[in-house]
Amino acid sequence: MAESALGAAPGTMATMPGPARPSHLNRAIAARLKRDADGLVPAVAQQHDTGEVLMVGWMDDEALHRTLTTGRCTYWSRSRGEYWVKGETSGHQQWVRSVALDCDADTVLVQVDQIGAACHTGERTCFDADVLPAVVGVPGARTSPAPSAT
Amino acid sequence: MAESALGAAPGTMATMPGPARPSHLNRAIAARLKRDADGLVPAVAQQHDTGEVLMVGWMDDEALHRTLTTGRCTYWSRSRGEYWVKGETSGHQQWVRSVALDCDADTVLVQVDQIGAACHTGERTCFDADVLPAVVGVPGARTSPAPSAT
Repeated sequence: MAESALGAAPGTMATMPGPARPSHLNRAIAARLKRDADGLVPAVAQQHDTGEVLMVGWMDDEALHRTLTTGRCTYWSRSRGEYWVKGETSGHQQWVRSVALDCDADTVLVQVDQIGAACHTGERTCFDADVLPAVVGVPGARTSPAPSAT
Repeated sequence: MAESALGAAPGTMATMPGPARPSHLNRAIAARLKRDADGLVPAVAQQHDTGEVLMVGWMDDEALHRTLTTGRCTYWSRSRGEYWVKGETSGHQQWVRSVALDCDADTVLVQVDQIGAACHTGERTCFDADVLPAVVGVPGARTSPAPSAT
């Protein structure tokens, strides 16, 4: 854990941690990237033509650099603690079409051309198998109970 | 920071933190939810018909519970440390269509009907304004240099 998170209220972010590892990421991009305490940002991979949200991975500065410069999505594996070129062994590559940062520069959206299944379970996307029971909202309706407003 | 993260290698996750705050979330869902050290999971909001990825927010157990049961997307604001019902003051509500967990139960995808702009800047999505220069990948091509394979 970066020291920057110490002293912050639980569930809040105090300051902006720097890169966790050395990287060749463009300096202007690195300067505005807002990382979590582990030096990571979530990266959403979306199929460029169908719009399917395929998966969410994590990128540090260097994973983003490799994604921007090699044409292949590269993530940081939080469980293995190493870089992970999507599809390098499975053959289910993600070929980069475009990359965008969000308005807060703390999330990446990668439009990709996904070969085969994006999910390690063999499903096309990581969100296909576990749909939760949810109340469908009706635009214009008043919700009840109303949680704290912002 | 949850103590579970202490002792873990930088950038890796050691154990699964529990809920950060009390919640009425369904117990079966809560039991399999894999939270970060702050008790949060990223939540991707996608427009249900156009497929636009609108934004990525954060949910704790209770935010997910409210999203599942009120028909309105509710997030946990990391900067303010409070629940945040999307559009409650701006009028730019997110009405829930469906909610799914990913294969690792550590990310949420919410299909929504977004009223107006999803982004606080007034853009339709949070990813409209900051497209990064990227090499477009060509399926079947060999990338060079080839980073570590997995």
